[in-house]
Amino acid sequence: MKISELSASSGVSVATIKYYLREGLLSPGVSRSPNQADYGDEHLARLRLIRAMIDVGGLSIASVTQTLAAVDDTSISIHDAFGVAQDALSPSWPIEPDDDERVTAARREVDRWLHKRRWKIRPDAAAKAELADVLVLLDQFGWGCSADLFDDVADETFAQAAAEIQFVDDSQDRSTMMRQAVIGTVAFEQAYGAIRRLALEHHSQRRFGRPKR
Amino acid sequence: MKISELSASSGVSVATIKYYLREGLLSPGVSRSPNQADYGDEHLARLRLIRAMIDVGGLSIASVTQTLAAVDDTSISIHDAFGVAQDALSPSWPIEPDDDERVTAARREVDRWLHKRRWKIRPDAAAKAELADVLVLLDQFGWGCSADLFDDVADETFAQAAAEIQFVDDSQDRSTMMRQAVIGTVAFEQAYGAIRRLALEHHSQRRFGRPKR
Repeated sequence: MKISELSASSGVSVATIKYYLREGLLSPGVSRSPNQADYGDEHLARLRLIRAMIDVGGLSIASVTQTLAAVDDTSISIHDAFGVAQDALSPSWPIEPDDDERVTAARREVDRWLHKRRWKIRPDAAAKAELADVLVLLDQFGWGCSADLFDDVADETFAQAAAEIQFVDDSQDRSTMMRQAVIGTVAFEQAYGAIRRLALEHHSQRRFGRPKR
Repeated sequence: MKISELSASSGVSVATIKYYLREGLLSPGVSRSPNQADYGDEHLARLRLIRAMIDVGGLSIASVTQTLAAVDDTSISIHDAFGVAQDALSPSWPIEPDDDERVTAARREVDRWLHKRRWKIRPDAAAKAELADVLVLLDQFGWGCSADLFDDVADETFAQAAAEIQFVDDSQDRSTMMRQAVIGTVAFEQAYGAIRRLALEHHSQRRFGRPKR
């Protein structure tokens, strides 16, 4: 298809597609003439992946570039590429050393908790720093600084995550698997947040729905 | 305390505190002299709430302003104020009418699903539009467009949310309750996202940890 057709199918403007081509996020089409190139379904799939990371995942162009580089690098394992994508999704990424004693203590607490749960996590996983930041916040508001607060949620999340990872179809090629893994991570995180807020609204209505006198 | 002490206790710069004072996010201190005002613990609590919404919740100043206005307006119920805070947390907010047929169909699907589950949700809740956007995305990637996909997660989330709402202490005054509700929503959403990504990493390691040959 022509670039105008790729734009119509994806809902992404021609100018934006050209920008992605210049930045190397999208591979060039097959040249048909000096001024026209031909794009295929793999370009459409790639564009949708990019837009999902930006629109739903809230990733910056820099994070998308880094994630796609890992997706494309066949010399690294699916697991390692997935780790890069996960890190890009964390607001605490890149992780910086922090002099603040409370942050240091919270990061140690997260390590203790993960060790207790026997979860195998990279030492520098961004989600660890993110969870530590939340603990610092909760501590400031009087909830204490123990990750054990999350034990029940972690039990349920652990079972769900196992099902999600099983769901990735390894009869597919690497780029399809990576796309499934990245979209799954981004889209389901967004969906779960929205569902939680809907459930909170329902229960809030039942408890606080009438004006307090 | 002086503004410099408020800055030291909160970790927020004096310039930023003055900006919040000008924007009305923070109420003025008690004047001690023409050039000095005195700030109390309620200012510190307020500053922490503002920073949590911005740093952890990712809210814009405009959304924070709108949320705090609802928190402060004692003429509206806790439940309604909580709804404003929830909406501010949704990336789809404000909700715009959408001509796209797929979006319209997905929004109808979310309504059907919520009705099936008997969740009492405001017709214009932002989280509904957010969930519909995720369904459109999943549909593009071949997951289909049925919200029933989320039934198991919704069962667990529903029970958790009931516990969280019960946890709000109604022996406290309105502003303390609102602070608990807003911080709880923001902080736990972030924590649950991070925990899910950690659980995915653990299971990904077990399934894909070695390079695929």
